[in-house]
Amino acid sequence: MKTLSLITMIMIALSVCSQENPEISEEIIMLEKAALERWNRGDTHGYLDLYADDIVYFDPMIEKRMDGLKKIKEYYYPFEGNINITECEMIDPKVQSVDNMAVLTFNLKSREGETAYHWNCTEVYRRDKDKKWKIIQTHWSYVKPGL
Amino acid sequence: MKTLSLITMIMIALSVCSQENPEISEEIIMLEKAALERWNRGDTHGYLDLYADDIVYFDPMIEKRMDGLKKIKEYYYPFEGNINITECEMIDPKVQSVDNMAVLTFNLKSREGETAYHWNCTEVYRRDKDKKWKIIQTHWSYVKPGL
Repeated sequence: MKTLSLITMIMIALSVCSQENPEISEEIIMLEKAALERWNRGDTHGYLDLYADDIVYFDPMIEKRMDGLKKIKEYYYPFEGNINITECEMIDPKVQSVDNMAVLTFNLKSREGETAYHWNCTEVYRRDKDKKWKIIQTHWSYVKPGL
Repeated sequence: MKTLSLITMIMIALSVCSQENPEISEEIIMLEKAALERWNRGDTHGYLDLYADDIVYFDPMIEKRMDGLKKIKEYYYPFEGNINITECEMIDPKVQSVDNMAVLTFNLKSREGETAYHWNCTEVYRRDKDKKWKIIQTHWSYVKPGL
């Protein structure tokens, strides 16, 4: 019993130190996975519905940070119905959070036809007045791109 | 006067909508610029001193997200004294924040000798118990890397 208590105390201490909240982590990862699954079959609205109006956005295809949901809707328009990711593995998702903001980071391996992708991803979520988590910052980049 | 008041009201409304806090924005951008200036002359400790113990980290050279200050200290060790960025322009920094967390995003153009770099950057800051802002997530990626 003594050992168990010690382990529990260490786990609580570690959790406090790293400022991870298991409930928030679970909810954020669930939201991300649901949006990603829709994206993988060509439904861009999983992510678009999660994006806040003031979202800022990076991916490897754009020249400069893209600001605001309106621009990202236009940018995503050609992708709608035109994505067919057949394999997708989210690697080691981690959420660091305070009450109303959380950052989710992970690596991702995916495949579309013959093409394999390997991503770094950072999503910042903010809890809005209605208590819903919305993404306010997205950053996708390639792992070790050949330059 | 009426016009001025209206403009002021619109600016306040926009500021509330986008959840930007000018004081937090100014402080975060100042911290980032100071760390960056030190980095540019080979002093990695500007950033290392800003990083929280539980920082997570992406850049284009690593295979997987790097977790924790200890690993990043080891990773930065060979850079110490070996960087000489001669030109550096932070483009359009933007901070979105709640009380104790903030996300800073910007593009960056820099030059070291003959080599020009064009970056996307996302930094997530968290305010610690002692009210100091620390970076808990860093994501550097190349703009439009040639694949």
